[in-house]
Amino acid sequence: MAGGRPSVLLVRCPDRPGVSARSAGAVADAGGNIANADQHTDPESGLFLQRIEVDDGCDWDRLTRQLDAGALDLGWQWELHHPRTDVSIAVACSRELHCAADLLTRSSIGELGARVVALVSDRDDGDALAASFDLPVHHVSPTDADARDEQLAAALDAANPDLVVLARYMRIVDPSTCERWWGRMINIHHSFLPAFVGARPYHRAHERGVKLIGATAHYVTPDLDAGPIIAQDTVTVTHRDDVADLIAKGRDVERVVLARAVRLHLEHRVLVFGNRTCVFD
Amino acid sequence: MAGGRPSVLLVRCPDRPGVSARSAGAVADAGGNIANADQHTDPESGLFLQRIEVDDGCDWDRLTRQLDAGALDLGWQWELHHPRTDVSIAVACSRELHCAADLLTRSSIGELGARVVALVSDRDDGDALAASFDLPVHHVSPTDADARDEQLAAALDAANPDLVVLARYMRIVDPSTCERWWGRMINIHHSFLPAFVGARPYHRAHERGVKLIGATAHYVTPDLDAGPIIAQDTVTVTHRDDVADLIAKGRDVERVVLARAVRLHLEHRVLVFGNRTCVFD
Amino acid sequence: MAGGRPSVLLVRCPDRPGVSARSAGAVADAGGNIANADQHTDPESGLFLQRIEVDDGCDWDRLTRQLDAGALDLGWQWELHHPRTDVSIAVACSRELHCAADLLTRSSIGELGARVVALVSDRDDGDALAASFDLPVHHVSPTDADARDEQLAAALDAANPDLVVLARYMRIVDPSTCERWWGRMINIHHSFLPAFVGARPYHRAHERGVKLIGATAHYVTPDLDAGPIIAQDTVTVTHRDDVADLIAKGRDVERVVLARAVRLHLEHRVLVFGNRTCVFD
Amino acid sequence: MAGGRPSVLLVRCPDRPGVSARSAGAVADAGGNIANADQHTDPESGLFLQRIEVDDGCDWDRLTRQLDAGALDLGWQWELHHPRTDVSIAVACSRELHCAADLLTRSSIGELGARVVALVSDRDDGDALAASFDLPVHHVSPTDADARDEQLAAALDAANPDLVVLARYMRIVDPSTCERWWGRMINIHHSFLPAFVGARPYHRAHERGVKLIGATAHYVTPDLDAGPIIAQDTVTVTHRDDVADLIAKGRDVERVVLARAVRLHLEHRVLVFGNRTCVFD
Repeated sequence: MAGGRPSVLLVRCPDRPGVSARSAGAVADAGGNIANADQHTDPESGLFLQRIEVDDGCDWDRLTRQLDAGALDLGWQWELHHPRTDVSIAVACSRELHCAADLLTRSSIGELGARVVALVSDRDDGDALAASFDLPVHHVSPTDADARDEQLAAALDAANPDLVVLARYMRIVDPSTCERWWGRMINIHHSFLPAFVGARPYHRAHERGVKLIGATAHYVTPDLDAGPIIAQDTVTVTHRDDVADLIAKGRDVERVVLARAVRLHLEHRVLVFGNRTCVFD
Repeated sequence: MAGGRPSVLLVRCPDRPGVSARSAGAVADAGGNIANADQHTDPESGLFLQRIEVDDGCDWDRLTRQLDAGALDLGWQWELHHPRTDVSIAVACSRELHCAADLLTRSSIGELGARVVALVSDRDDGDALAASFDLPVHHVSPTDADARDEQLAAALDAANPDLVVLARYMRIVDPSTCERWWGRMINIHHSFLPAFVGARPYHRAHERGVKLIGATAHYVTPDLDAGPIIAQDTVTVTHRDDVADLIAKGRDVERVVLARAVRLHLEHRVLVFGNRTCVFD
Repeated sequence: MAGGRPSVLLVRCPDRPGVSARSAGAVADAGGNIANADQHTDPESGLFLQRIEVDDGCDWDRLTRQLDAGALDLGWQWELHHPRTDVSIAVACSRELHCAADLLTRSSIGELGARVVALVSDRDDGDALAASFDLPVHHVSPTDADARDEQLAAALDAANPDLVVLARYMRIVDPSTCERWWGRMINIHHSFLPAFVGARPYHRAHERGVKLIGATAHYVTPDLDAGPIIAQDTVTVTHRDDVADLIAKGRDVERVVLARAVRLHLEHRVLVFGNRTCVFD
Repeated sequence: MAGGRPSVLLVRCPDRPGVSARSAGAVADAGGNIANADQHTDPESGLFLQRIEVDDGCDWDRLTRQLDAGALDLGWQWELHHPRTDVSIAVACSRELHCAADLLTRSSIGELGARVVALVSDRDDGDALAASFDLPVHHVSPTDADARDEQLAAALDAANPDLVVLARYMRIVDPSTCERWWGRMINIHHSFLPAFVGARPYHRAHERGVKLIGATAHYVTPDLDAGPIIAQDTVTVTHRDDVADLIAKGRDVERVVLARAVRLHLEHRVLVFGNRTCVFD
C-alpha cells in the first residue's frame, strides 16, 4: 500500500435510515479514521451512494468483516480500494494526437498516478510519439471493421490495463468490447453533449453559429456518445473563429476534461448509477 | 445626440480589396475621429462586416454623402446610429419572472441604456412586479393561440419599442410577428443550444446527467430556438443538483446572458449574416 | 416549519474516530431520514465540520437530547435549523445600486427565501428604488463617521434582520458593529481578493492591465476586505475595456456572486473556521 | 513563406484622423487582400495600434514602400511578418515539469507552430523528459546566482530562439537578460496577478481561503511578476482542496494559459504599450 494516501471505501444500496451511521460505525469499530466522507442519495431511484477515505492504521480485516455483515443486513455493495503504485492505462487514438500525447506526458512526469502501458491506433500518426516514450503501439485495421474489433479486443486483453481511454479514437467500439470494459473505458467527445453527437462536431458548431464549444468525457456504452458523463467544460468562441480555430481551441478543453475524468476515475471518485454519475470531488 | 458616447457606423458588403480603406477614408474625409473600429470578413460567404465608432465632431452630412457614394461604387449597405436617450424595450414574460424582473431593475437604475415601456404576459404572475415599476401589462390569452397571436402583435405595435425581449415567454410566436420584428426580437432559451431545443430543458439535462447547464440568447425566427445566437454561457452542476437546483442555478446564467445580449444589441454590436452573428464586443 | 424543505443540522468539534457515526446515529435513533450529508475535516486544525439535511418526520426532541449527550461526550457544538418563512435581510448601499436592486428584485419574486426588510444608505440615490418596493430607507450620515457608525448600528438593531448585506456600501463599518454582526454580515468586494483590497479596484485593475476581473463575497471583520471568503468569480476582459467597461462587466459578477453567497448563508451551507469557510454546496 | 497562412502587418503610432484609412489603403494599393483587421486606440496614451492579416498575392515591395512613406508622413512604426516554418523556442524550467512538458509535447505534435530547440534548467529533473524529445539541456547553477545569470544568458544566446519561455523556472532572471529578451520572454506565474506575487502562491491562496486560483502569463521585466500580462485564467476550488490539490488543479490552468500566451505571441497578436498589452485575438 502506497504510504500517505488513504484507502477508499465505496458503499451503495437502497437508502434507508441508519445506513450512513452503519458504514461510519464500521470504520470507527475497526479503529479507522475517516479523512473525508461524502455521500449522496438519489431521490428518484432511492439509491444511497457513499465514498469514505480511510487513513492507514485501520484494521482492514475487521473492517471487511463489518462490511460483509452490513451486506447481509442492509443489502449494500461495497468496494475497498487501497492505494496502488502499479495502475495502468491503455490509450487508443487515431489522427488527432493531442489527447493521447497529453496523457503520455502526464504519465511520464508522474502526474497521473498511473502509467500508460499501451497505445492502440488505426493509423501510424502516433508511432513517433509512442517511440519517444518507449511505448508499444498496437495497430488495428483502418479499413476492416471486423478485424479492427478483434484486434482492439486482443490488444486490450494483452495490455490488461486498469483503464482504457479513447483519446480521440475515431472508431465505433463494438458492443462486446464496450460490455467487456464497462465502467473502465472512458471516451472524450469533442462537444458539450448532448449537442453534436457523432461526427464533425466542430464543423456543425461553426455552422450553427454557437458562441461556445466544449468537450465531454464519459464512460463508453454501445450507444454512441450516450454513456454516463463524468466531466464537461466549455470555452468561449467568436465569429472570428473558423472551423480550424474551433478545433485548435477545442483541443485544450478536450485534454483538460479528459485528464480530469481519468484522475477522478482513478481516485474512485466516480460512481455510476443508471446512466448518470455521482462524482465525489 | 447624447453627449460623450460615439456614433456607430455599420457597413456590410461583399468583400473586395480597398473596402476597409474606403469606409475609414470616408470618416477621415468628414473630419471624424475613429474611436474604435472592428471588422470581419466571413470567408464562406465573402461578406465584409464593419463597425466603426465615430466621435462627435464629425461632419455627419458630409459623411452621409460619402457613404452614399460608396454604396453606389461598392454596393455596400450602411447604417449610422447616433446615441439616443429614448431607446425603448417591450418585455414578454410568463410564469418565471427572473429575466423580466432583472431587465426592469436594470432599466430602472439606468444600467441598460434603454427603458422598458411595456410588459406582455399570458399570466398575471408579473402584475405586482410591473406595478412596482409603474409599467402597463398587456395580457394575452393563455389558452387561445390565435387570439394570443393577435394580442401580442397588437401590444407590440402599440408599444412600438426598439427591441422586443422574450424573457421566458413560454409561448410560440407566430411567423408573421417573427417576421415583423426580425432582428429586433431577442429570446432567452434555458439551455446551451443546440442541446435541449424546446420544452423542459432542465428536466432533460437532469435526465441526461450533464455536468453543466447553460443559456442562449438569440434572435427569434419562425424556427423554434434556431435563430442566430448572440450570447451563450454555461455553469457547472453536480449530481447533488436536482431539477429544482438546475432551475435555480440556471436563472443566474439566463439573466446575465440575456442582459448581455440586450446590451450588445442596443450598442449596435451585433450584425446578423445568414443564421450567424458577428458580435463586435 | 415550511413544508417540504429539510431541517439542517450543523456539527463542529475536534475530529476523532467515530464522531461521524455518532451524529448520523443520533439522527437514525430519532427516526430521522438523512436527505443529504456532507462533512469535512480540516487537516491543519483537526476540526470536524458536518452538515446534515434531515427530512421532516424526525423526533426533534429525541434528536436534541442525543445531540446534547454528544456535546457532553465529544465536546461538539451543534445547531439545528428548521425551515422558516420569515427570514429577513437588511441591505446597505450607497451610490452604486445594482447589488441592492438585484437583492430587492430577487426578494420580491420569491427567489431568495428571505425578505429584504430595510435599506440603509449614506446617499439618497436608492430612495426611488426602495419606494418601488415599499421599503423604508434608513439614511446615515455621508460626512460624519461617528454619527454614521451610530446610525448604522441603530438602524440594524431596529430592523433586527437575520442577515446584513453590504451591497456596495462604500463605508468602513466600525469594529463594534462588525463584532455585533459577526458571521451574519456579508460584504461584496469588487475584485478577486486578495488582489485590489480597498478603494477603486477597477481603476487599479485597468492600470495593471489584467485580463480578468472579479468579485468576492465575504463575511465582514474589522480588517478591511480580509474576512472569510464565501464565494468568488471572475470574468474575462480585454484591452478594449476601459474603466467604465470594467465597472459595467463587473456589475454582473458582483450581483451573481453576492446573491450566491446570500443563498449559501441562508441555507446554512457556510461554516466559518479560522479565517476560512467550509461551503457545503 | 508557408502556404496558406496570411502575413501579419503591425502598425503603431499616435492616433490621428485618417491613419486607419492610410494603412488599409496601403494594402489595397499593393493589391493585397485584408483577411482580417483589428485595431485599438488607447484613450489614455492616444496610441493607435493595428493588426492586419494580408493574404498572399500582395506586392510586398510596393507595400513596403507605402509603409515607409507612411512612417515619414504619420510617424508610424510598422512590422511585416511573413509566415515561417522555422520558429524556435527555448524553454527554462526547474522542478515542476508540467509546463515544459506540455510545450514540448505540443511542439512535438506540430500544434505550436514552433519548435522547442533547447531546455534550460537549474536541476536535472527534466533531463529524462528532454531525452524523450532528443533535446539538449543547458544546466545552470542551482546555488551560485552570478554563475547562473551568465549560464542562462549564454545558453539563450547559443540557442538564439525567437521566444524564451520561463515554464516554472523558479529563479529570478537578472535585469540584463530581461532587457536583452524584452518582449520575447514569457513567464507563467501560478496565481491570478496581482494577487500572490512572488513565492509559494498556492500556499498563500490556501491560507487566505480563496475560492478560486489562477495563472498569469506575462512578458518578463526586471520587476518581479509585474510585466505586461498576456493571458490569465482561473479555476474554482473548495474547502476540500488542500495545498497539494491547489497545486494539482493549478497545473491545468498554468499549462493552458501559458500555451495560449505562446500561441498569441507567435501569431503576432500581442502588442505591448506601456505596461499593458493589446491582444488581437
